[in-house]
Amino acid sequence: MTRFINKQSRKSGLPPGSIVYVGGKTQPTKLDYLRYDEDKLDVVDSSDLQNFQDVPTAVDWIHVQGLEDNKLITKMGEALQLHSLILEDIFNSNQRPKTEDMEDGLFVVLKYVTYDKTKQQINLEHLSLILKGNIVISFQNTHEPLFTEIKERILKANGRIRKMKADYLLYALCDWVIDNYFNVLEKLDDEIEELEQLLISDPQQETLQRIYKLKREIIVMRRAVWPMREAIAALNRTDNSVMSESVHIYIRDLYDHAIQVIDTMETFRDMISGMLDMYLTSISNKMNEVMKVLTIFAAIFIPLTFLAGVYGMNFEFIPELSFKWSYPIWWVITIIMGGGMLVLFKKRKWM
Amino acid sequence: MTRFINKQSRKSGLPPGSIVYVGGKTQPTKLDYLRYDEDKLDVVDSSDLQNFQDVPTAVDWIHVQGLEDNKLITKMGEALQLHSLILEDIFNSNQRPKTEDMEDGLFVVLKYVTYDKTKQQINLEHLSLILKGNIVISFQNTHEPLFTEIKERILKANGRIRKMKADYLLYALCDWVIDNYFNVLEKLDDEIEELEQLLISDPQQETLQRIYKLKREIIVMRRAVWPMREAIAALNRTDNSVMSESVHIYIRDLYDHAIQVIDTMETFRDMISGMLDMYLTSISNKMNEVMKVLTIFAAIFIPLTFLAGVYGMNFEFIPELSFKWSYPIWWVITIIMGGGMLVLFKKRKWM
Amino acid sequence: MTRFINKQSRKSGLPPGSIVYVGGKTQPTKLDYLRYDEDKLDVVDSSDLQNFQDVPTAVDWIHVQGLEDNKLITKMGEALQLHSLILEDIFNSNQRPKTEDMEDGLFVVLKYVTYDKTKQQINLEHLSLILKGNIVISFQNTHEPLFTEIKERILKANGRIRKMKADYLLYALCDWVIDNYFNVLEKLDDEIEELEQLLISDPQQETLQRIYKLKREIIVMRRAVWPMREAIAALNRTDNSVMSESVHIYIRDLYDHAIQVIDTMETFRDMISGMLDMYLTSISNKMNEVMKVLTIFAAIFIPLTFLAGVYGMNFEFIPELSFKWSYPIWWVITIIMGGGMLVLFKKRKWM
Amino acid sequence: MTRFINKQSRKSGLPPGSIVYVGGKTQPTKLDYLRYDEDKLDVVDSSDLQNFQDVPTAVDWIHVQGLEDNKLITKMGEALQLHSLILEDIFNSNQRPKTEDMEDGLFVVLKYVTYDKTKQQINLEHLSLILKGNIVISFQNTHEPLFTEIKERILKANGRIRKMKADYLLYALCDWVIDNYFNVLEKLDDEIEELEQLLISDPQQETLQRIYKLKREIIVMRRAVWPMREAIAALNRTDNSVMSESVHIYIRDLYDHAIQVIDTMETFRDMISGMLDMYLTSISNKMNEVMKVLTIFAAIFIPLTFLAGVYGMNFEFIPELSFKWSYPIWWVITIIMGGGMLVLFKKRKWM
Amino acid sequence: MTRFINKQSRKSGLPPGSIVYVGGKTQPTKLDYLRYDEDKLDVVDSSDLQNFQDVPTAVDWIHVQGLEDNKLITKMGEALQLHSLILEDIFNSNQRPKTEDMEDGLFVVLKYVTYDKTKQQINLEHLSLILKGNIVISFQNTHEPLFTEIKERILKANGRIRKMKADYLLYALCDWVIDNYFNVLEKLDDEIEELEQLLISDPQQETLQRIYKLKREIIVMRRAVWPMREAIAALNRTDNSVMSESVHIYIRDLYDHAIQVIDTMETFRDMISGMLDMYLTSISNKMNEVMKVLTIFAAIFIPLTFLAGVYGMNFEFIPELSFKWSYPIWWVITIIMGGGMLVLFKKRKWM
Repeated sequence: MTRFINKQSRKSGLPPGSIVYVGGKTQPTKLDYLRYDEDKLDVVDSSDLQNFQDVPTAVDWIHVQGLEDNKLITKMGEALQLHSLILEDIFNSNQRPKTEDMEDGLFVVLKYVTYDKTKQQINLEHLSLILKGNIVISFQNTHEPLFTEIKERILKANGRIRKMKADYLLYALCDWVIDNYFNVLEKLDDEIEELEQLLISDPQQETLQRIYKLKREIIVMRRAVWPMREAIAALNRTDNSVMSESVHIYIRDLYDHAIQVIDTMETFRDMISGMLDMYLTSISNKMNEVMKVLTIFAAIFIPLTFLAGVYGMNFEFIPELSFKWSYPIWWVITIIMGGGMLVLFKKRKWM
Repeated sequence: MTRFINKQSRKSGLPPGSIVYVGGKTQPTKLDYLRYDEDKLDVVDSSDLQNFQDVPTAVDWIHVQGLEDNKLITKMGEALQLHSLILEDIFNSNQRPKTEDMEDGLFVVLKYVTYDKTKQQINLEHLSLILKGNIVISFQNTHEPLFTEIKERILKANGRIRKMKADYLLYALCDWVIDNYFNVLEKLDDEIEELEQLLISDPQQETLQRIYKLKREIIVMRRAVWPMREAIAALNRTDNSVMSESVHIYIRDLYDHAIQVIDTMETFRDMISGMLDMYLTSISNKMNEVMKVLTIFAAIFIPLTFLAGVYGMNFEFIPELSFKWSYPIWWVITIIMGGGMLVLFKKRKWM
Repeated sequence: MTRFINKQSRKSGLPPGSIVYVGGKTQPTKLDYLRYDEDKLDVVDSSDLQNFQDVPTAVDWIHVQGLEDNKLITKMGEALQLHSLILEDIFNSNQRPKTEDMEDGLFVVLKYVTYDKTKQQINLEHLSLILKGNIVISFQNTHEPLFTEIKERILKANGRIRKMKADYLLYALCDWVIDNYFNVLEKLDDEIEELEQLLISDPQQETLQRIYKLKREIIVMRRAVWPMREAIAALNRTDNSVMSESVHIYIRDLYDHAIQVIDTMETFRDMISGMLDMYLTSISNKMNEVMKVLTIFAAIFIPLTFLAGVYGMNFEFIPELSFKWSYPIWWVITIIMGGGMLVLFKKRKWM
Repeated sequence: MTRFINKQSRKSGLPPGSIVYVGGKTQPTKLDYLRYDEDKLDVVDSSDLQNFQDVPTAVDWIHVQGLEDNKLITKMGEALQLHSLILEDIFNSNQRPKTEDMEDGLFVVLKYVTYDKTKQQINLEHLSLILKGNIVISFQNTHEPLFTEIKERILKANGRIRKMKADYLLYALCDWVIDNYFNVLEKLDDEIEELEQLLISDPQQETLQRIYKLKREIIVMRRAVWPMREAIAALNRTDNSVMSESVHIYIRDLYDHAIQVIDTMETFRDMISGMLDMYLTSISNKMNEVMKVLTIFAAIFIPLTFLAGVYGMNFEFIPELSFKWSYPIWWVITIIMGGGMLVLFKKRKWM
Repeated sequence: MTRFINKQSRKSGLPPGSIVYVGGKTQPTKLDYLRYDEDKLDVVDSSDLQNFQDVPTAVDWIHVQGLEDNKLITKMGEALQLHSLILEDIFNSNQRPKTEDMEDGLFVVLKYVTYDKTKQQINLEHLSLILKGNIVISFQNTHEPLFTEIKERILKANGRIRKMKADYLLYALCDWVIDNYFNVLEKLDDEIEELEQLLISDPQQETLQRIYKLKREIIVMRRAVWPMREAIAALNRTDNSVMSESVHIYIRDLYDHAIQVIDTMETFRDMISGMLDMYLTSISNKMNEVMKVLTIFAAIFIPLTFLAGVYGMNFEFIPELSFKWSYPIWWVITIIMGGGMLVLFKKRKWM
């Protein structure tokens, strides 16, 4: 199951702004550097930090995969004059989504979400986006390829992305992240539908565990989504000059989508808590059925067994024993008693 | 059961503003074009887009049934200079209700709701309304005939609709949509009353499933209604010049109705959660009854059966066996014991 | 049980502002028309609409009982130049409490509440109050006599009512309505106390149903009370000139009372949900007791019956059968086993 | 148990501002009248209303115990020119805590709380405080001696109270009331601790009733505390000139304490609802244990009793009966079956 | 278990601003006094209060361990001209976290949290921080060494702390406190994971008690954390001149961390309430299993035992007894009946 906190205890006590990589996996950090305008597209050599420069006429997009190389990223931070607290946030994968207004740029933290259906597990990936002048830098703490469709759109000059500035690129990256939430929500929707079917047809202990895990993962996801909404709202209301008026309408649309994600997620939460109630009530119902069967059997046969026991006694003087019709009469009484019970239970609607 | 999301995964990754029709059914798109003022009424030929023009003295209402014809609608959008994001919202049936202030017009998304009593299913239909100058365009993503009463009022010049401008038409369409919610709420009210009766007279497993489904459908409906309230509030506080002062009082009334819908729905939610509690408690109560019956039978007859078993033993030296009055004495003891139990249970109010 | 919606489906589709009487009973509409100032009191003939006029020096109070006479009330509306939407609200008994600021007057919708203890049912009566110049008109949709104490105070010139203007009359009517809520709350308080006593002494299935109904009726009542608070708050903050400064302090007091009603009602809700929990837990407790009794009987006598069964077998070679002391020894073993069980259950605190 | 409303139905229908004493006990109203400044202290004769006068250089504190003497208090009100609605609030013990800004003074309603541990009952006493010029008047509706420590501080000139003005006295009285809430909270804390211990060691039906009552009394207390917070906040933000700047810092501190009371109370609510859950779950757990014991006994001995019954049958031709080793073999089979069951139950962790 | 209130009843009734030490342990108060700037570091002799002076060029940090020495601390307060209410708050360990804006300084109350895993107990330690000119004074009410890492950073001139002013020191202390919350949250996270594993593999009564205690301790922790957020928000928005612009960005980061603490804690609360539901449902599930086993045994063997009892009767005329094939036929019937039951239960999925 997903843990709620990445271990960062070794950090506490360090001076604020200390850079501690809180992720886990180790692979060398990889940089992709694209420089483009409407007409031209360059793949810049990212090995030389000298190339990091703000070219007024073009958009620079540097995508950093993996945060293992502390030094490199720190140097990038220095080159771009980032505050040490911002560098800290880039490395701290426990950082909640947020938008920070830097004097001459914007810093956005988001979570990229994936859902592993077999393990029923939500994974959150820490993403940091920086917009400064005409440069956009995106950091991810793993090595999965992200933003592939956007790269493609830039390469193929699809849509309006090549015609727009760096602020639109920032928007496009955020939009990609949020669009992806809908994929996950759809998978969760499938899961919920499946569980609902199980709940109605044949609820099992294992169904309960799946519902519980789903609930748990939605709690995990909420932690990423709610602050994301606030982050995008902040992006929406910023009056930072790096964000041009023409992009604001897109940001508003983005905010709309974020709300929709939250909305759907909250609906799922409601659904799941309804499913848990339904499950609990189903079990009570079943137990009721079981108890009725037990009681019917016991109430019919226990008195009859007693009656049989009476005439199994070995007293020497039991007058009925020697009477000829005793046995058939006994059966008649027995059947009447048993039948009477049945009628009674029918009346009480226990059968 | 209603799914919470229409599949739109194929969309994610496309450039923002891409038009993807997310609905399902396929039938050709149909246009109804009415042009009217207080004295005159024309049915305009909608096959020629040249006819789409803002005539200052008349109101133009174009109603689009079905969104299958991407190209036609895109052309309409271009003719009216709509932003690509608005076109995207018209096609995206997952879009939540909202009001967007365009510079020279208003864009309203609503959900038309129907309730299928036999399937116990809420259906939401995606509606988009555009007010621009003297033109109102309404889009629905299915082919059911909507707004029939309004069409009739225009044709027959009933009420004040023919005397008013396009902003009143927009209001009238919204009002029609919300009035319809009351129809659905009434049906849900009937359903609740029926379930309450069942709950008191004879709660069954099937009753539980109906309550659960009702709860589920109300969750679905809430998703449409809450943002609708916000959308109408936005309509109410807009200072867009296309909305004249004289229509504002109607919008306020509309808002009042939206609140009433939400209010009633939340009451239903409360009712249903009360019904679930009641159901669960009823089951516990019933189980208690069953258990008491079982315990009474067991507590009375198990000791007596034991007593019968004692004298059914074949030991050679059991003095009581040969004593003459043993058998009647045994019966007396038995009856006293059984009767004592009964008295005890009466005292404990188990019977 | 109270329905949540009065049927108004026949209305939907009609032009907005259409007057549809949504109530049920039919009796002729009755008008009471009082004109008074500090010194004089007239009962005006209400049959002639010509008499409806704003006399600057006196207060006119017209009380309308029953809304059956559409035409009469519509004419009154025209005489007073009321907007058609306001007339619609007067007739629509589903309208929530609200205060509408008309340019030259105030329109207040309230609900008058009564509680029928035998049916355990809250009844809401639709009341509309209009203040325009020196005229106050009050509409009720039934024919029960309301406002009797106020009428009396006017007739007998009790208190300050005859010295004040029409705005004070409006306040007095609202105050009368809210004071009445306290009567109902007291009755509910009695009911709660009674149910609490039952819950502690002897909870029955019927107790549960009473709690459930009480909960339901409080849900009904909440629907009337919460918007009433907002309506009175609006009355409090209005800067409409028809409401004089000297009456504002009374309105603030009224608001205070409205808050108190809500407060008490929410406390009742808390109490009732606590009672339901208590009930459920009591049942579980009881079932536990029943189960213990069953288990004690079963655990003691089932093994002993087995032991009796053993020596009731007819094998030819059972050595114990012919041993002389077998029977008393058997009893000793039996009693020790049974007693041991009892001791065990005592230790486990099952007895 | 505490009732939520003092009967005031006889009031409804009376003109607003009518004085109705809603309390219960009857003892003559008692007045304490202190006049003090830094150097001097007089006990004023309160029997003569002529003495009620605002002496600019001294602080006057009149404490009224018991509200039985309507006329006296009404006269005081007239002497001080209080609005009739304020007099009404002084007498109405159902009035919620609040602060009213009079033009030339402040009117504060608070509730004094006591907790009777043996009856597990919260008692709320209605207190009204008036600050007007240099006069503070405090009204309590019972005859218990309140504010004794403050009286003492004034008499002995302890602390800064004698050096300060009437506004500080008002603060000191409020502070005394709120400090007292902490006493009650401590007692509730003890109660909670005790119940928690019981819950873990040996939960009984009676424990449940104590938890329920505690919950109930906290609901009662909340009704007094939440509006008190608002009342003190109003005191804090008032710009009424009777409240001097130097006292404002004390009021802020008072507000802080009010928040702390609410905070602790809400924590208690959380705790108690957790205890109810714990109780319910404990019962289910116990029932599970009981059921297991029953099932183990039944599952082991019922089949064996059947086996004994088989050879207790009197068929003439049962070959096993005459076989010599039948009886020991029967025992072997019996013991193996019983032991097998035990092993099975051990495996299932039922034992 | 942690108590919610430290006894402070002896305080109530004392004049406001009275200093009462509410803590428990007794050890002499200890002072650490550091004076530093970028170049120099002095350990000041704290025994002489004459040394308490605001040196414009250096930062003074006085850390007070233990609040036993009332007089000393009161003298310090006088030397620094602190309001008596602030001194009261320093001593009152029940005081909630808050930030108070003094005219010439800031007063911050925080809670330092520790978690004792073996006792499953959260401990809150009362901390007060004062920033006045270039002096920072920190008070803790116990004698555990706190702030060791910060002391070290000052001593070793690590990070930027020696280059910054007193406002940064205040921030650093707050940051240290909040960083420590993450340590505790991690431990709680471990605990939750452990309990989740237990819940799935083998839930026991003891598991329930651990969940309950965890819930309880999180309630305790919430009381410290929620107002802490508000305290830091106040620190963030203060325009007090002692807090320089350059430190504000750090405070914002601090606020971000506080939010993250709350966020995680609320997630834990959700998790735990989910675990309780899961536990309760698991028990119901288990009981269902137990009941099924019981019912299967009872339903199969009780009728068969009856059948055996029938032919154990001693009636003289039972024709079947002497029939040769009776016994095998009896077995056949018995086995068919038992087998039929088994098939039935299989069908009902009870096995």
